[in-house]
Amino acid sequence: MPRKLVVKRGKKLGAAPGTLVHIGDHAQFECTTSVVVYDQENLQIRENVTPQTCHELLALPGVKWLDMDGVHQAAAVKEMGELLGLHPLVLEDILNTDQRPKVEAYDGYLYIVLRMLRFDQTNHQIYSEQISLILGKDYVFSLQELPDDMFDGVRARLREGRRIRFMQADYLAYALLDAVVDHYFVLLEKLGDEIEALEDQLIIEPQPTTLRRIHHFKREMLMLRKAVWPLREVLNQLSRDDYPLISEETRLFMRDVQDHSVHVLDTIDTIRELLVSMLDLYMSSINNRMNEVMKVLTIIATVFMPLTFIAGVYGMNFEHMPELAWRWAYPAVWVVMTVVSAGLLLVFRRKGWL
Amino acid sequence: MPRKLVVKRGKKLGAAPGTLVHIGDHAQFECTTSVVVYDQENLQIRENVTPQTCHELLALPGVKWLDMDGVHQAAAVKEMGELLGLHPLVLEDILNTDQRPKVEAYDGYLYIVLRMLRFDQTNHQIYSEQISLILGKDYVFSLQELPDDMFDGVRARLREGRRIRFMQADYLAYALLDAVVDHYFVLLEKLGDEIEALEDQLIIEPQPTTLRRIHHFKREMLMLRKAVWPLREVLNQLSRDDYPLISEETRLFMRDVQDHSVHVLDTIDTIRELLVSMLDLYMSSINNRMNEVMKVLTIIATVFMPLTFIAGVYGMNFEHMPELAWRWAYPAVWVVMTVVSAGLLLVFRRKGWL
Amino acid sequence: MPRKLVVKRGKKLGAAPGTLVHIGDHAQFECTTSVVVYDQENLQIRENVTPQTCHELLALPGVKWLDMDGVHQAAAVKEMGELLGLHPLVLEDILNTDQRPKVEAYDGYLYIVLRMLRFDQTNHQIYSEQISLILGKDYVFSLQELPDDMFDGVRARLREGRRIRFMQADYLAYALLDAVVDHYFVLLEKLGDEIEALEDQLIIEPQPTTLRRIHHFKREMLMLRKAVWPLREVLNQLSRDDYPLISEETRLFMRDVQDHSVHVLDTIDTIRELLVSMLDLYMSSINNRMNEVMKVLTIIATVFMPLTFIAGVYGMNFEHMPELAWRWAYPAVWVVMTVVSAGLLLVFRRKGWL
Amino acid sequence: MPRKLVVKRGKKLGAAPGTLVHIGDHAQFECTTSVVVYDQENLQIRENVTPQTCHELLALPGVKWLDMDGVHQAAAVKEMGELLGLHPLVLEDILNTDQRPKVEAYDGYLYIVLRMLRFDQTNHQIYSEQISLILGKDYVFSLQELPDDMFDGVRARLREGRRIRFMQADYLAYALLDAVVDHYFVLLEKLGDEIEALEDQLIIEPQPTTLRRIHHFKREMLMLRKAVWPLREVLNQLSRDDYPLISEETRLFMRDVQDHSVHVLDTIDTIRELLVSMLDLYMSSINNRMNEVMKVLTIIATVFMPLTFIAGVYGMNFEHMPELAWRWAYPAVWVVMTVVSAGLLLVFRRKGWL
Amino acid sequence: MPRKLVVKRGKKLGAAPGTLVHIGDHAQFECTTSVVVYDQENLQIRENVTPQTCHELLALPGVKWLDMDGVHQAAAVKEMGELLGLHPLVLEDILNTDQRPKVEAYDGYLYIVLRMLRFDQTNHQIYSEQISLILGKDYVFSLQELPDDMFDGVRARLREGRRIRFMQADYLAYALLDAVVDHYFVLLEKLGDEIEALEDQLIIEPQPTTLRRIHHFKREMLMLRKAVWPLREVLNQLSRDDYPLISEETRLFMRDVQDHSVHVLDTIDTIRELLVSMLDLYMSSINNRMNEVMKVLTIIATVFMPLTFIAGVYGMNFEHMPELAWRWAYPAVWVVMTVVSAGLLLVFRRKGWL
Repeated sequence: MPRKLVVKRGKKLGAAPGTLVHIGDHAQFECTTSVVVYDQENLQIRENVTPQTCHELLALPGVKWLDMDGVHQAAAVKEMGELLGLHPLVLEDILNTDQRPKVEAYDGYLYIVLRMLRFDQTNHQIYSEQISLILGKDYVFSLQELPDDMFDGVRARLREGRRIRFMQADYLAYALLDAVVDHYFVLLEKLGDEIEALEDQLIIEPQPTTLRRIHHFKREMLMLRKAVWPLREVLNQLSRDDYPLISEETRLFMRDVQDHSVHVLDTIDTIRELLVSMLDLYMSSINNRMNEVMKVLTIIATVFMPLTFIAGVYGMNFEHMPELAWRWAYPAVWVVMTVVSAGLLLVFRRKGWL
Repeated sequence: MPRKLVVKRGKKLGAAPGTLVHIGDHAQFECTTSVVVYDQENLQIRENVTPQTCHELLALPGVKWLDMDGVHQAAAVKEMGELLGLHPLVLEDILNTDQRPKVEAYDGYLYIVLRMLRFDQTNHQIYSEQISLILGKDYVFSLQELPDDMFDGVRARLREGRRIRFMQADYLAYALLDAVVDHYFVLLEKLGDEIEALEDQLIIEPQPTTLRRIHHFKREMLMLRKAVWPLREVLNQLSRDDYPLISEETRLFMRDVQDHSVHVLDTIDTIRELLVSMLDLYMSSINNRMNEVMKVLTIIATVFMPLTFIAGVYGMNFEHMPELAWRWAYPAVWVVMTVVSAGLLLVFRRKGWL
Repeated sequence: MPRKLVVKRGKKLGAAPGTLVHIGDHAQFECTTSVVVYDQENLQIRENVTPQTCHELLALPGVKWLDMDGVHQAAAVKEMGELLGLHPLVLEDILNTDQRPKVEAYDGYLYIVLRMLRFDQTNHQIYSEQISLILGKDYVFSLQELPDDMFDGVRARLREGRRIRFMQADYLAYALLDAVVDHYFVLLEKLGDEIEALEDQLIIEPQPTTLRRIHHFKREMLMLRKAVWPLREVLNQLSRDDYPLISEETRLFMRDVQDHSVHVLDTIDTIRELLVSMLDLYMSSINNRMNEVMKVLTIIATVFMPLTFIAGVYGMNFEHMPELAWRWAYPAVWVVMTVVSAGLLLVFRRKGWL
Repeated sequence: MPRKLVVKRGKKLGAAPGTLVHIGDHAQFECTTSVVVYDQENLQIRENVTPQTCHELLALPGVKWLDMDGVHQAAAVKEMGELLGLHPLVLEDILNTDQRPKVEAYDGYLYIVLRMLRFDQTNHQIYSEQISLILGKDYVFSLQELPDDMFDGVRARLREGRRIRFMQADYLAYALLDAVVDHYFVLLEKLGDEIEALEDQLIIEPQPTTLRRIHHFKREMLMLRKAVWPLREVLNQLSRDDYPLISEETRLFMRDVQDHSVHVLDTIDTIRELLVSMLDLYMSSINNRMNEVMKVLTIIATVFMPLTFIAGVYGMNFEHMPELAWRWAYPAVWVVMTVVSAGLLLVFRRKGWL
Repeated sequence: MPRKLVVKRGKKLGAAPGTLVHIGDHAQFECTTSVVVYDQENLQIRENVTPQTCHELLALPGVKWLDMDGVHQAAAVKEMGELLGLHPLVLEDILNTDQRPKVEAYDGYLYIVLRMLRFDQTNHQIYSEQISLILGKDYVFSLQELPDDMFDGVRARLREGRRIRFMQADYLAYALLDAVVDHYFVLLEKLGDEIEALEDQLIIEPQPTTLRRIHHFKREMLMLRKAVWPLREVLNQLSRDDYPLISEETRLFMRDVQDHSVHVLDTIDTIRELLVSMLDLYMSSINNRMNEVMKVLTIIATVFMPLTFIAGVYGMNFEHMPELAWRWAYPAVWVVMTVVSAGLLLVFRRKGWL
């Protein structure tokens, strides 16, 4: 999932909606599905489940959480989709992994698209991955592009038999959404630290690379904002609208995540404005330095040009130059030159250039 | 359709609304109409249909798709318009090919205006073409300014007897809208690639032409945004409002296209902000380079001006210059000059200029 | 009506609302009124009508169009106002010719204010004129500040007995509004052509005057936007709100003009952003040129300062300078100087300055 | 009332709401109250009225206008407030003279806060003063910070027995609001004239002080906008909302003032954007001039450095310099120098620097 | 609570909502709670109250105000939370002290989050602290991160038996909100004074540190805006929405605080725009100075280079230079040099450079 400005959608051109081809980078691993079935008393975790087993597990009582890692094998996704009776457009959106975050209500289930962001500190880049959630009456079907430990916290809480075990599928969906938004804070914290380090460097000693790094961070913020902005709207809908699948109680929790997402956006905007201000600071300090350089040049030139001229005058070879023969001419010239340069330096001091 | 900032509307001045004159560039080809009549079982494709035949075909059962290439022959358009009973204002808007995208409900049909954009990679320019769609109860009448293969994908799907054959005229309209919006992604992908190449060039080695290219892309983005922005509103209306001509099911699909159009706009805005940041980067790097140049100049001048002055002093022809006769005066002057220049270079190193 | 940033309203200070004094430049011609009375069969055009005759003509059946050129004679306007029973505030607004575009519903009539814009190509300035329209049940009363041929197209269509003759007064009002908005396109086309010429000049060879012209156009766009922006709202109200004086059918036409006004605004905004981008381009290209100039200076100084220094050294008059007596010293100095300057030029080429 | 960025509110800290202390600059004059009682037939004007007399006058039939100059004597304001039965929060807001414009409905009266702006042409600064209006059923209580002739026009109209005498208290409130907004136009006209003069100066001959003046005007516009922006909302409410104290007829007039306030805001925004454009123009023209300066320097240096070098070469004292003895060497050197400088000037002309 | 761009939330990652861990800097003092119980007649103030005593005091009649200083001891907060029956999410938000201001209605109480800002004049930085308010039917529970004298004014008014003693718990909440917003004015006043001092310095004599200070203030304003912006919405809800816990009368007072918060935001925005304008002024004045410097350099170089060249010419050692032997050659050269330099200075004066 290397970051590109515009992701190719070309393959789909002319294809009917609902044609199932995975659009995105083709990963090199097998798509696997794990299923967790739980209620207050029981918890059953199954890894590497076949669609057939899925079908059986779905018939069990309790909340079912189907978690699929990898969506690059269209056939596997399609099979699961048919199992759950998903609309062709939903399957298409799951496979085209460059969707904007959105929530769509279908008959009997909600389809939620999110973007997971990871910051690779080696090359200072943000990678983006699509997370799809299907929230049904008694199940959640989550799909990630890459195997990841992002939902491990949720899994742990399920295992520990905490509150989440007493709640319905909508609360599980909330827990997954919350995990995603919490990761944004981790990301922003890392970025924020790097930007503050850059800011310190900028104030102490700006360098040409500083500029490129500011540009780089501005670019990252653009991509970040593009990913998070629609998420706010998604969470807003989930916490306000009357989706019957989400209980009144869970809606309170959704409101909390929505709050966090607004906080994320506020922070992104603050960072962006800070970067603009940093660029201004950089530009001005370059100008300041150039001013400094020019002053040195001007002072040197202004002091030495008249002196060199005077020396030049008495280097002329005219036969009739009475001064040349005077006894004290040479020391007098030194006096004149000293006076001239001292005078000029005084003028510069008056102007505040020294 | 060369790209102009403001398209001439002059001809219409003072004319009554409903005066049918084609406003736009007059193309050099014959306007032709093809008709596709289809239902689940049958499919009939007719090229180069006369209005008379159209009239007959319209009476057939099934969905009728009338596709007209070229709107520069006002008479042909008018004849078709009368056949379908279109309002004079609609015909006028079809002929004036610089409309903003919009949807207008008339008695018994919807009039949808879109703009098709094509990127000519030879001269790096975007060309814009007006697409008009009339969605009636059992027909779609589409008009393009130029013969084009844009709708070939839709035609292929009709021929293959896919889902589209089971749906009504509103789904056909959706398929055409979807084809247009999909082309925007192709366009953006090409532009995005060029802009990223430019960005790389900017970071490695900015050049005067870089600046012009940034300006050029900003201009393109302005034109693009102007074309796509109102489209979002059009698709929003089509997917929300209660146009009885669009079924509940098709509305779901319209929502999907609307989603894509928002995605297009997001991408345009991101590119625009990136271009602004690239310009800042360019400006700063020019300033950086000038700073570099100035430093070289200042160092050279500051080192050599005092030396030249010293040489000038001992080039004077005064009769009484005791130093001239000293035995070690010449080497001593060299020592002084070496010390002076070494001292100055040390100062520059301290200032971080070397 | 010379263009001023803020138009004087001083005279009115402290005056009661409804005090009728014309505020604006006092034109040097007589205010004249022409009346057109028409229905499907008959058309009667009367020029230079007295208020008395107006009174009689208003009693006739059919649609009455009263067109007054010049509003600088308050008494004439007042007399007409009383004839039609207009509110004192309306008369005041007609005379104070710096109103923002607006529509106001009064008992039995609508009061519409527009601004007509003309571009004087001699001094490249936009002039603004206030157009007032009173739409009554069976009459339209239009007032312009200057005699003008702007409504000639409408008059021609009335004479030719076209559709307008079959419609009511509201359609006449629409025709007049449409004529005004169409003139904006003429204006924008002229401006657009000039700006594109300026853009070409900017890319080929920017000049100090380019800058002033960009500023000039920015200023024009500001004035233009200020005039057109509220018009959109006016037309929006006329096409949506339930003014009983405007029939359902005419509302369709009003929607069309509103569309055009949005198009005008889009174009203004696009031009404004283009001007901003042009200014950036100009600034950068100046900086580029300065960079160029500085490089030439630095190269020259860096090459010749060391050479001049060397020449200066051997121009010194010390008695003990062994080199001076050497046989091949002079050619050797030439060799040294050639090597030094070649070396420096090589360094510059490496830096990419040559 | 000197203009400050943030007005001190320190005194109120920790105080209960409703603690009546005047916050603002303490003026040096006595607070005085004048009362006008009028109806269609009678008009009674009393200056320097005591609260006791006020009490008696308020019992009279007709409209009562109480106008208080100076609010720095908290006791006097409090006494009047109790006479009219005002809420403690209202009294507090009257005394804290840095309120934003607002309208608040209380039981039986409306409390309207405005800001009066005056432009002092001596030091080119805008001063801001708080105007409070209490509109009761049959009275208006107006409070200004300073004695002023702003409401003299209204007083004159009352004396002349014009329409205002036939209307109720709400119309009087309108007349006072109108007087305030009209003063904004006077202010803007003065500012507009100064800014246009500055613009002319900028184009003809920019100066360092120009920059400070642009900054100064930008600052003024910021303060102005801050004062006028909320006023628009206030007038909007007065012309739309269902305040029973304002009759349907007066609402029409209120709509008119609201229109004017929007016009004021439009003008402020236009001026602000113009100032931004002027700053750009200034920056660019400085850069242009620097470019000009650099070119002169570069041409001079480029022409004279080689010449000086040549002269330096033949000023060397080597014993074996064959050229020195040649008969035509001296004229030949002049020829060489002429050719070199002519060639360089030609190069500069080619580059367009001359 | 040192100011950071992004506050760490890392600890919570993967934790269930409702896990009570204090997130923020761990202060070094004991969390203490004071309780005030009051009605019209009685007032009881208790410091350092244990939860047990709290429980008893809550059972008393009258309004109870529980004020807790320090939230870093999760256990203490949790105990109080359980005493009052607060939702786990509320407790979590109280402990995570980087919430955005918000108001949330729960069963039987309102949860209000505010941010208190303090300006440390030693290091010119703004510190931010979270204030949580729980408004129940007859109690207010307030939590601050640090012991502070901010609410001392409210305490004093309670002691003095003023109006606040006659009101309910909602009015107490209002009094606390009002105290917080009033502190913003203190903060802004201090900042405003510093910024105006900086502005004066900028106009009189800009310095490199000026730039950093502008950047510093811009950063502070960003943080400030981020804290105050959502507060406006909170207060808006409290003054408009139908929270049954807030009486009609208190709502009037809430409207007043909301007014103040809008005023705070207006001021922040004005300051921000002023800072932008100051930066422009700074940049331009640097450019102006550089222009000044360049002019001096150019004048000096242009005057002395030709003179030095002339002197160099007559310093050449050709045997055949007839001028050298002329009687008046030396004075003639001086005349030529004077004329040349005078001519150049005249040119510069014409150009306005002198």
